Amino acid sequence: MGKGRLEAFSDGVLAIVITIMVLELKVPHGSDLASLQPLLPVFLSYVLSFVYVGIYWNNHHHMLHATRRVSGGVLWANLHLLFWLSLFPFATAWMGENHFTAVPTAAYGVVLLMAAIAYWVLQQRIITLEGPDSLLARAVGADIKGKLSPLAYLLAIALAFVQPWLAWAVYVLVALVWLVPDRRIESRIEGS
Amino acid sequence: MGKGRLEAFSDGVLAIVITIMVLELKVPHGSDLASLQPLLPVFLSYVLSFVYVGIYWNNHHHMLHATRRVSGGVLWANLHLLFWLSLFPFATAWMGENHFTAVPTAAYGVVLLMAAIAYWVLQQRIITLEGPDSLLARAVGADIKGKLSPLAYLLAIALAFVQPWLAWAVYVLVALVWLVPDRRIESRIEGS
Amino acid sequence: MGKGRLEAFSDGVLAIVITIMVLELKVPHGSDLASLQPLLPVFLSYVLSFVYVGIYWNNHHHMLHATRRVSGGVLWANLHLLFWLSLFPFATAWMGENHFTAVPTAAYGVVLLMAAIAYWVLQQRIITLEGPDSLLARAVGADIKGKLSPLAYLLAIALAFVQPWLAWAVYVLVALVWLVPDRRIESRIEGS
Amino acid sequence: MGKGRLEAFSDGVLAIVITIMVLELKVPHGSDLASLQPLLPVFLSYVLSFVYVGIYWNNHHHMLHATRRVSGGVLWANLHLLFWLSLFPFATAWMGENHFTAVPTAAYGVVLLMAAIAYWVLQQRIITLEGPDSLLARAVGADIKGKLSPLAYLLAIALAFVQPWLAWAVYVLVALVWLVPDRRIESRIEGS
Repeated sequence: MGKGRLEAFSDGVLAIVITIMVLELKVPHGSDLASLQPLLPVFLSYVLSFVYVGIYWNNHHHMLHATRRVSGGVLWANLHLLFWLSLFPFATAWMGENHFTAVPTAAYGVVLLMAAIAYWVLQQRIITLEGPDSLLARAVGADIKGKLSPLAYLLAIALAFVQPWLAWAVYVLVALVWLVPDRRIESRIEGS
Repeated sequence: MGKGRLEAFSDGVLAIVITIMVLELKVPHGSDLASLQPLLPVFLSYVLSFVYVGIYWNNHHHMLHATRRVSGGVLWANLHLLFWLSLFPFATAWMGENHFTAVPTAAYGVVLLMAAIAYWVLQQRIITLEGPDSLLARAVGADIKGKLSPLAYLLAIALAFVQPWLAWAVYVLVALVWLVPDRRIESRIEGS
Repeated sequence: MGKGRLEAFSDGVLAIVITIMVLELKVPHGSDLASLQPLLPVFLSYVLSFVYVGIYWNNHHHMLHATRRVSGGVLWANLHLLFWLSLFPFATAWMGENHFTAVPTAAYGVVLLMAAIAYWVLQQRIITLEGPDSLLARAVGADIKGKLSPLAYLLAIALAFVQPWLAWAVYVLVALVWLVPDRRIESRIEGS
Repeated sequence: MGKGRLEAFSDGVLAIVITIMVLELKVPHGSDLASLQPLLPVFLSYVLSFVYVGIYWNNHHHMLHATRRVSGGVLWANLHLLFWLSLFPFATAWMGENHFTAVPTAAYGVVLLMAAIAYWVLQQRIITLEGPDSLLARAVGADIKGKLSPLAYLLAIALAFVQPWLAWAVYVLVALVWLVPDRRIESRIEGS
């Protein structure tokens, strides 16, 4: 079964998720700079979520580039990932509009955590299909980043109830770590 | 006539339908867990509809994979299916926001029923074009699931006026039955 | 220059236009059948516009299928067409929410008229590029439907100020005439 | 690494951005021509932004047509461009709804400026990857338009605080200059 439509559908959903988030940036009634100020937390949340969706698109792109075929199980694992990513606009807006209070900041972490787990499940599904000697299996390797990120999100969810800004710092930090594209796959592909 | 643009356009519409539904999950004003509670029925409706659109995308993917060419009639049968699927966000939100009362729950079933009929019409159109010995015709076979689902929706529409939760149980049950991807086509393709 | 991305971008915009229109079908607060009744004119407008966007997608599909290459001018003629089609959700909602009163019904006709002109300009641009002996030029031929539709829209715009339902009848009639896919191109392609 | 998904994802985001802007054209409650009048500034802003997004899509199309491969850095430079373009709907609506007052008109210029810089960064990234003798490097050449546009936006941002309509005149003028598609690349490709 070809992977073309899986990529096209995922691209479509990710493009909509990343663009729909901006609709939460409600146009203010005033026309001076001061009227933009209350939007700042929503805008910062938007930037963070834009980067996260960008990271997912980027890694998804790399992962499927190293994939040769997909099965029905992979299609559903992919839809499961898209489900959690589709909750980004909601989680982003709730956190931003409440100025990073405890519960919404923790809820944002829960969505990040579930998306990370869904991504990992999808990756495992593909590796099972492709075999342990496949390009993807070797490229992923020990997958330190993929294993530490969920732990970091768990930590951030706990921190949100102590001091929400600490949770935010963790989210930003994890995003920065992932911003480095998955060079493992890239270099493996070029080396093969 | 190529099927590439038909797939691309359908992917686009389905990606938007599946993502736009999340906009009905209105961001609450409060910032505690209790403020999420009224959203629960809308969220559950969203999950169910996400799974249904996923099933349609999955089966559509399989069906067109087994199709070699399309005609003008197929293009319109496909648009007819997309029309009913485009009503999912409305039906989902109406049912969710009214906490599964009778009429909205039945209306949801009507949309499911019409989409199922539209899918069946599209399938018949393609089989007529491809011939009774085509890969698709043999893969679809007796099509038990495709014939029983509309009956189940009819039953659920009636049940909605007795006890809406029974209707919901039928919707969930049918979704679970379909969650199993259409292995008939998959195995036929691999066997051919 | 390839036509692939022109098709992909047009598919994207048309998929969004056709799906975004459904957002104007505002979820009613009540949960009985009576609360759906005020939505009927909006729903009917939605059905009509869905069919019109479907017709444009269908004909666009056929036209580009018969096109071998595109130029910068064609890209802009295509964007010009997409601009008028992007006003469909607005015109549809305005007409529907005002229960087909004179001005909104005429405004809907203006958008239909401008889209028809934009389609004709795009078609001419491509024919100029491809040459008078090209597949498309021969397939389009005298283009009776393409020339009569703008006249019908002009008539409907005038009728809207006399009796809006007459204008609506014209819109429905033109849609029905176009629902027959552009078999000229289809048969030319198959015959070539 | 292939450029196909980069193009597909960008097409998706641009298609959504260009279409979502029309949602800011709120359907008026009245049904006479006078009720359309307050929408005029929003509509004019929409037209301008539609043309700008069209220009970006057009030039993006040409640039990637002349590109043979992409790297992780190019993917992120592209996402950076899409981020600023995703703010078009917000900037357009804020400017339109405030009837071109000083701050929103300047803010629109800031978004245009950042998008222009992001486009230039993306272009440089690709040229670095492809080499100084590449088709793209030669086609871009001295890139007078690309270098003057940011200066024009800076001027317009300043002018917005003197007389907003002067800033608008600059935005329209720059759009007109860019409306001429990037024939440099087109002719280079045809000549090569």
